[in-house]
Amino acid sequence: MVRYHFGYGGASGRRGKRLRPLLLLQVALAEGGTIDDALGPAVAVELLHNYSLVHDDIEDNDRLRHGRETLWARFGIPHGINAGDAMCSLSFLTLLGDAAHSGERLSSMARVLHEAHLSMCEGQCLDIAFESRDFVTMDEYRAMIRGKTAALFSASCELGALSAGSDTGRGQAYAQLGLAYGVAFQIRDDVLGAWGSTHVTGKPSGADIARRKWSFPVVWALSGAHCADRAIVAQAYARNEPLSPADVADVVAALERLGARDAADAECDRALDEADAVARRASLDGDGAIRDFLAQGARRVA
Amino acid sequence: MVRYHFGYGGASGRRGKRLRPLLLLQVALAEGGTIDDALGPAVAVELLHNYSLVHDDIEDNDRLRHGRETLWARFGIPHGINAGDAMCSLSFLTLLGDAAHSGERLSSMARVLHEAHLSMCEGQCLDIAFESRDFVTMDEYRAMIRGKTAALFSASCELGALSAGSDTGRGQAYAQLGLAYGVAFQIRDDVLGAWGSTHVTGKPSGADIARRKWSFPVVWALSGAHCADRAIVAQAYARNEPLSPADVADVVAALERLGARDAADAECDRALDEADAVARRASLDGDGAIRDFLAQGARRVA
Repeated sequence: MVRYHFGYGGASGRRGKRLRPLLLLQVALAEGGTIDDALGPAVAVELLHNYSLVHDDIEDNDRLRHGRETLWARFGIPHGINAGDAMCSLSFLTLLGDAAHSGERLSSMARVLHEAHLSMCEGQCLDIAFESRDFVTMDEYRAMIRGKTAALFSASCELGALSAGSDTGRGQAYAQLGLAYGVAFQIRDDVLGAWGSTHVTGKPSGADIARRKWSFPVVWALSGAHCADRAIVAQAYARNEPLSPADVADVVAALERLGARDAADAECDRALDEADAVARRASLDGDGAIRDFLAQGARRVA
Repeated sequence: MVRYHFGYGGASGRRGKRLRPLLLLQVALAEGGTIDDALGPAVAVELLHNYSLVHDDIEDNDRLRHGRETLWARFGIPHGINAGDAMCSLSFLTLLGDAAHSGERLSSMARVLHEAHLSMCEGQCLDIAFESRDFVTMDEYRAMIRGKTAALFSASCELGALSAGSDTGRGQAYAQLGLAYGVAFQIRDDVLGAWGSTHVTGKPSGADIARRKWSFPVVWALSGAHCADRAIVAQAYARNEPLSPADVADVVAALERLGARDAADAECDRALDEADAVARRASLDGDGAIRDFLAQGARRVA
């Protein structure tokens, strides 16, 4: 089942972008480490991310991922939960079994990754709770994405530094950088969830809106002044069923007129600038390789 | 939700027996360790066990535990999966944050516990798969309970020894002892699931039979020679719906006549004798305190 999830063993279908392990490797190289020393933590991070996807797909009732049935849709919910749990243990066994590092460092790295694991659960708990809400504040939204998304980007950066032998202080600076980048990544993902084409996202255009997901553009629009366009968004999100394609198009158009897309782009840029500022303050990323890597992944959607 | 699961915060209801952490503490004391040094691993083991219960309750569609609604029955499946995941991370954060031990030892202990975590998933995978089977061999049954139940007893014993500063060799001997004891415990639990009174188990008498669980007495009976009593059991287990109380009584009576209860008791004794033999071979448990503890928990059901 784990092989099935990853698309190995004959099943075709697109695979993930491996963004978190690639970021971890970039940080390790920037800190003078080697790929060999970073590979165990990088695999651990990717496994942990995928464990969370397997469980999220059940919790969100998502039946498709990368054009194939999700694990639970194929094997049932009991196996879906359990195979996800197994992937969690495989993540940490990969990390803790890495002969490239001392036991002292492995226990630090496992602690960092389990802290991220707990934050992910906290963020997901908020996300689940928000589903039955008809208003979410910007502070609540930020707390949710910090846990659900940014925590693992943060841990990826910190583990990259620790795998290179950097000290705790530099590790924590990289954790801050990763957190800011994770926020930028999620907001960009939210923009894609409303305006991205199927070609880019692999999902129907406006997929997040159809399912009334609390994304940055929506939270931002509903926290603004009352007006006709805001009312269109509010009424759609106060309903109890998925929206029709026509409703989705109305909401997306209203968001655009309200300036929610520009606001999201600006917020994404702000988070990336914060990542840059962290890097400058702590003298990280001397040759700018990480910044270039992030810019490829998270600057504006073309 | 985690507090709710453990019965804290006003909700009444019986709590668990804390058997695994108590066993861990017994081993630690037998090895000359202290309660303080064993407490972190003991809490970690209990949390990991409860995480598995929270997920098993979803996978098995169990709505009641200790006389209260299970976590998912109260808060829904999405929160149930996610709160269980959080308990998993809390288990390992408790272990890895324990200041009583060096990072070197913490990473060894975390590896032992994640190995058990993976084995539990493997055992649970078999258990889920067996639900749609109408025959399970004794070898398959043994593989299932080794993972689902015995692996965590094994890790509890090993962690007790490691927390006391015992070397890897003694830790592994204790792991073997715990494995044998875990097998004994599960078979005794199977006997209770068929013959135990509600007073002892907190569940209706014959609860495992009603749900057509593949317990030792049933697997043993169906692997024997053909006869009328065996046919009663086989026909009940070949059905697709839960059994009526009258059907359950018929199956339990047939199992008794076939000698399945005596066979289970004998198998349980054999596993306990194996635990004793491991202890003798490796000169563990000098004053017999662990044997006494196990005997209380797992010798014949009164």
